[in-house]
Amino acid sequence: MTLGSSVDGRRARGDVTRRLAARTAAEIATTHGLDSISVGSLAAATGLSKSGILTVFGSREAIQVAAVAEARRIYRETVIVPAWGNEPGKPRLRALLDSWIAYLRDGVFPGGCFISATSVEYGHREGPVAAAVRKLKREWLDLLEAEFVQAGSADPASDAFTIDALLNAGNVRRELFGDDAELDWARTLALTIVG
Amino acid sequence: MTLGSSVDGRRARGDVTRRLAARTAAEIATTHGLDSISVGSLAAATGLSKSGILTVFGSREAIQVAAVAEARRIYRETVIVPAWGNEPGKPRLRALLDSWIAYLRDGVFPGGCFISATSVEYGHREGPVAAAVRKLKREWLDLLEAEFVQAGSADPASDAFTIDALLNAGNVRRELFGDDAELDWARTLALTIVG
Repeated sequence: MTLGSSVDGRRARGDVTRRLAARTAAEIATTHGLDSISVGSLAAATGLSKSGILTVFGSREAIQVAAVAEARRIYRETVIVPAWGNEPGKPRLRALLDSWIAYLRDGVFPGGCFISATSVEYGHREGPVAAAVRKLKREWLDLLEAEFVQAGSADPASDAFTIDALLNAGNVRRELFGDDAELDWARTLALTIVG
Repeated sequence: MTLGSSVDGRRARGDVTRRLAARTAAEIATTHGLDSISVGSLAAATGLSKSGILTVFGSREAIQVAAVAEARRIYRETVIVPAWGNEPGKPRLRALLDSWIAYLRDGVFPGGCFISATSVEYGHREGPVAAAVRKLKREWLDLLEAEFVQAGSADPASDAFTIDALLNAGNVRRELFGDDAELDWARTLALTIVG
């Protein structure tokens, strides 16, 4: 075994650890909050060693930031990408509503929408974790607004505000009242905004 | 000093402890979550002794339930009561929007709306704390719906859904982006629903 391949082996193990830990941390964030993530709790949930996790991330905060990045990747893959083949504007907005509902129905995260959960938990805080949460929410709002511009909306920012509000409410109500019909209700109301 | 007055004195001290601890716990819930409340953290935040807190509440869970009850009392006093002098229906709905905005602008809770924060944190859970959170949200939704019935809405439940969604979004966006204008934006959008 050459030194190069040994380094590659370590890198590959590091990547697996990183992905598994970040994914698990993102899942935990939706049920018990980003604050509940610790090296110890993550080791227990993943079966990885504490030292292995610390070697890859260096700090608890780095794990939390990685959880947001992994959640962003998953959100992109499950909500944005499936809708992107549609024409910009109304068709794409309708497809985004469909994929957003599917993202929750399929239980991609065990505690519902990652952005919804972490925005409330970290909204008022400062630091790198809050900045990552804030940026992700802003990206989503900007994306919606750009589609409303394409759709010829008279007030794209307000329409994005309302759609995001309705979807979040659907998520929270479904978590509270345990009924997927809350998601369909949110979509029905959102469709009246999309037109 | 008679036995009776001694008992009354203990009761009075218990009431002060209960109120102070419940109020502080409700405040902490909006910044760091109901989960972050412990007898130790509450003793540190209030200056009360751990044993004094435990004597009054008996358990951490009882403190969390008391925090929800105290938040309900505060919400009622600051959001509902000031609006109640108005005529049922649209006038009262408009007044509720005003008092809700004031409740957040005045920083009644340091982390924004108590219902918004705890609904997300405890929405998917079971047990007495989650039940109290769920009941408080349901009460608020039912109150809005009843006013929309009075206002002659064609779909009172959907209008209540939307108003609650917009207000929550205003709260979360203001926490995230640090701008009170988010609250006014939410009210402007909500007023188009009230009519």
